[in-house]
Amino acid sequence: MLQFWFDFASTYSYVAAMRVERECAQAGVEVEYKPFLLGPIFTDLLGIKDSPFNVQPVRGRYMWRDLERLCAKHALPWRRPTVFPRNSVLPARAALASGELIGPLTRAIFAAHFAEDQEISNPDVVSRLVDSVGGDGRRVLELAQTPGIKAQLRANTDEAKRLGIFGAPDFVIGEELFFGQDRLEDAIAWAQRT
Amino acid sequence: MLQFWFDFASTYSYVAAMRVERECAQAGVEVEYKPFLLGPIFTDLLGIKDSPFNVQPVRGRYMWRDLERLCAKHALPWRRPTVFPRNSVLPARAALASGELIGPLTRAIFAAHFAEDQEISNPDVVSRLVDSVGGDGRRVLELAQTPGIKAQLRANTDEAKRLGIFGAPDFVIGEELFFGQDRLEDAIAWAQRT
Repeated sequence: MLQFWFDFASTYSYVAAMRVERECAQAGVEVEYKPFLLGPIFTDLLGIKDSPFNVQPVRGRYMWRDLERLCAKHALPWRRPTVFPRNSVLPARAALASGELIGPLTRAIFAAHFAEDQEISNPDVVSRLVDSVGGDGRRVLELAQTPGIKAQLRANTDEAKRLGIFGAPDFVIGEELFFGQDRLEDAIAWAQRT
Repeated sequence: MLQFWFDFASTYSYVAAMRVERECAQAGVEVEYKPFLLGPIFTDLLGIKDSPFNVQPVRGRYMWRDLERLCAKHALPWRRPTVFPRNSVLPARAALASGELIGPLTRAIFAAHFAEDQEISNPDVVSRLVDSVGGDGRRVLELAQTPGIKAQLRANTDEAKRLGIFGAPDFVIGEELFFGQDRLEDAIAWAQRT
């Protein structure tokens, strides 16, 4: 079992999200999806209310170029979003509310965000994406606004902090933390050994 | 031609330094060694006078664990240094003063630092390391203190800033920047295509 920790606002999480299910399946490793919010973690650890890639423009410039290259390498469509970072609270709650559809919905939301520049904080967009993967968009959106789902997202974010997560994406096996989409192979190998 | 940009104080640069020559040779790509100083870059970009891994302890804790795992993966000896970060000015100057020995000397300095916990800012240590790779330690140390070598290290650091470098190690092909030891394969593939 490999936990995939991600934030829908995170560019590198997009690359990981499009790879994780297939590469884990090939390795016989099960994936558990763990959406969380980076915002409160960046505020706690760095005292910032924005993406570190905006706060540090030199690092940001590299990230945008790196994403282009990574998407080309992994044959993923890519369009730089016109808004960054987008608010990821609603899509994260919708993912948690989507039950067994969380894998396909996660990929659909990431693709909408980073391949089609869609506003993933818009309820109509999220509802349509749920529909597109065979779910009931209206019902998932209703569920996403319930106290139980809201608490689940807060609990995921608290658990991310406890695990020592400071960015996204991450792969966690037991208490072993792997940070960055480029650690997917190492994390899978770890999961296979344990 | 692939430029390898590194700082002797940088843990991830150790892993890269021990891999770069062999993996580039296997791919038929020539390596140019570019020691530089991260300190002035961190001060410029982040306003800090210490390693970001000390300033951000959550990130630091992950890095130390990650290094253990990476060294195990690449079959590299590893001992966590008792001082971090160590001052890397003298070893960087010595590397620049070592001429054709820069490859073996770079590996010897990194191994002394991260496999044997030696104080690489100590002239006696550096002199001995130069001797150990077949050079003249006393002569390299003398040369390392000349204005020409000092200027060369400053010029490398300025060039690193110009290239958009914000951490180490890095691989540069032309103006194309790859950050992080885990980008070595991608950088080699880029060098082969261009």
